[in-house]
Amino acid sequence: MKQALSWVNGQAGALVDVSERALHYGDGLFETIRIRRSAPEFLKRHIKRLMAGCERLKFPPMDWSLVGHELEELSARHDDAVLKLILSRRSAGRGYGPCSDQAVTRIASVQPLPAWPANPAHSGIRVRICDARLAAQPLLSGIKHLNRLEQVLARAEWDDPAIAEGLMLSDTDRLVEGTMSNVFILSNQVLITPDLSNCGVAGVMRSVILDLAESLGIDTEIRSVSLEEVKTAGEVLVCNSLISIWPVVSIDGIGSFGSVSISRQLQAALSAYDKAGDGNWYSS
Amino acid sequence: MKQALSWVNGQAGALVDVSERALHYGDGLFETIRIRRSAPEFLKRHIKRLMAGCERLKFPPMDWSLVGHELEELSARHDDAVLKLILSRRSAGRGYGPCSDQAVTRIASVQPLPAWPANPAHSGIRVRICDARLAAQPLLSGIKHLNRLEQVLARAEWDDPAIAEGLMLSDTDRLVEGTMSNVFILSNQVLITPDLSNCGVAGVMRSVILDLAESLGIDTEIRSVSLEEVKTAGEVLVCNSLISIWPVVSIDGIGSFGSVSISRQLQAALSAYDKAGDGNWYSS
Repeated sequence: MKQALSWVNGQAGALVDVSERALHYGDGLFETIRIRRSAPEFLKRHIKRLMAGCERLKFPPMDWSLVGHELEELSARHDDAVLKLILSRRSAGRGYGPCSDQAVTRIASVQPLPAWPANPAHSGIRVRICDARLAAQPLLSGIKHLNRLEQVLARAEWDDPAIAEGLMLSDTDRLVEGTMSNVFILSNQVLITPDLSNCGVAGVMRSVILDLAESLGIDTEIRSVSLEEVKTAGEVLVCNSLISIWPVVSIDGIGSFGSVSISRQLQAALSAYDKAGDGNWYSS
Repeated sequence: MKQALSWVNGQAGALVDVSERALHYGDGLFETIRIRRSAPEFLKRHIKRLMAGCERLKFPPMDWSLVGHELEELSARHDDAVLKLILSRRSAGRGYGPCSDQAVTRIASVQPLPAWPANPAHSGIRVRICDARLAAQPLLSGIKHLNRLEQVLARAEWDDPAIAEGLMLSDTDRLVEGTMSNVFILSNQVLITPDLSNCGVAGVMRSVILDLAESLGIDTEIRSVSLEEVKTAGEVLVCNSLISIWPVVSIDGIGSFGSVSISRQLQAALSAYDKAGDGNWYSS
């Protein structure tokens, strides 16, 4: 692919004003999108989540057609890469209060795909349980906002490259998500993913997997999940837009999940689904 | 004062790189400092809190002498103004994990003092109780980090200019702080400020007031405070480095705190204390 590239409000550039509220307060949202065959994958779902985030944070109205076209235009210049979009509330002066004439800054950048060791989608990954807990904040749960210090602290807990991800618990010891992924467990033939009404990001790949499972006739459930359930699950997988689906083969060095059969079914269904696409982002 | 001014890493400028982790994750810290008579007030305490924040977020070592001198140099160009310093962890690539060769970007800016209506330090202010609750996250409590969406949402709850501040409760209905201030209440002749071990920012003015109270022979306590205690307190005040001390005269339109005597004592002691200064920031 070509060199890393960034656009600020549709113009090539790598600088933003120091008054941006994303910088001062994390007052903004982001999406990490996989570019595949020069197109942004699941663009419609990403934009839908951004819209939900903008509503929650009371952002001013956005020109979503402009946003979508910009992401498509940037993607067209690359084959397989990572596209990140940040929306930042622009400053209208000092203090936390937003002004009425506020605007939103779009910061889009493209980077090469990370170089993952081995082939984690095939061979599975080792994960750990993080010490850092996710605080319960229903006002911010589900959306992909820019207040990510919990994830930063959790990811700083380990530097063993053999550990690919850390699972994070709530302050009541329930499984929530990975530092950069959502989690599914298989228990009694039901595919379960944690309820995110108090914390966590409702990932785009999580929503895709819920749809894929339905089309495959696999029962799904969204509910509270205990750590014990994770450790005794028949199968565990993590997912996000970039990595797609990675089966988990060990947690904290103990426990071995022999089965990856649901991961394989979902991976196969995802490949087929990719080909069919996800509809135009601007339709409905 | 002269025009608003900003420095990035000691150089005049108003632009930062889009890869800054403050922008992506709120991965950083800040201080808001009052410039008075061309000097940064309570610089030693501000730097001490920054140091604590850097330690908590595992920032790389900083040249604190450089930071202090920069803030003094910027202050010397203004009489009475607001100085804000942001420290951002510089990016070392994609993802939450910090790299070993990380560095820190310093973003300093000076703005005019806000134009407060009337004279709130003298006449007192009206406050409201915010609906937005502060989540319990001991890993981030006390320090002045850049994940401030809770404050942004709380401050967006009202736009009546007659309401000067909003008080925020924890998810267990205990008083924590104001959106931009710390809070003290007077109950049975004891000056009480909420314990911040689960959430809240341990403000510089809060620490000054605790010291002033001691020197005035006023008993102080740091502990959990219920909303009921606030509403039945003999006196309530909010404070920060910018506003110093504002007595509260009504909460949610009800309750009237006749007494401002402790506020007056503290304001007088603060004026005297200002003149004496707070020691050199670089001497421990």
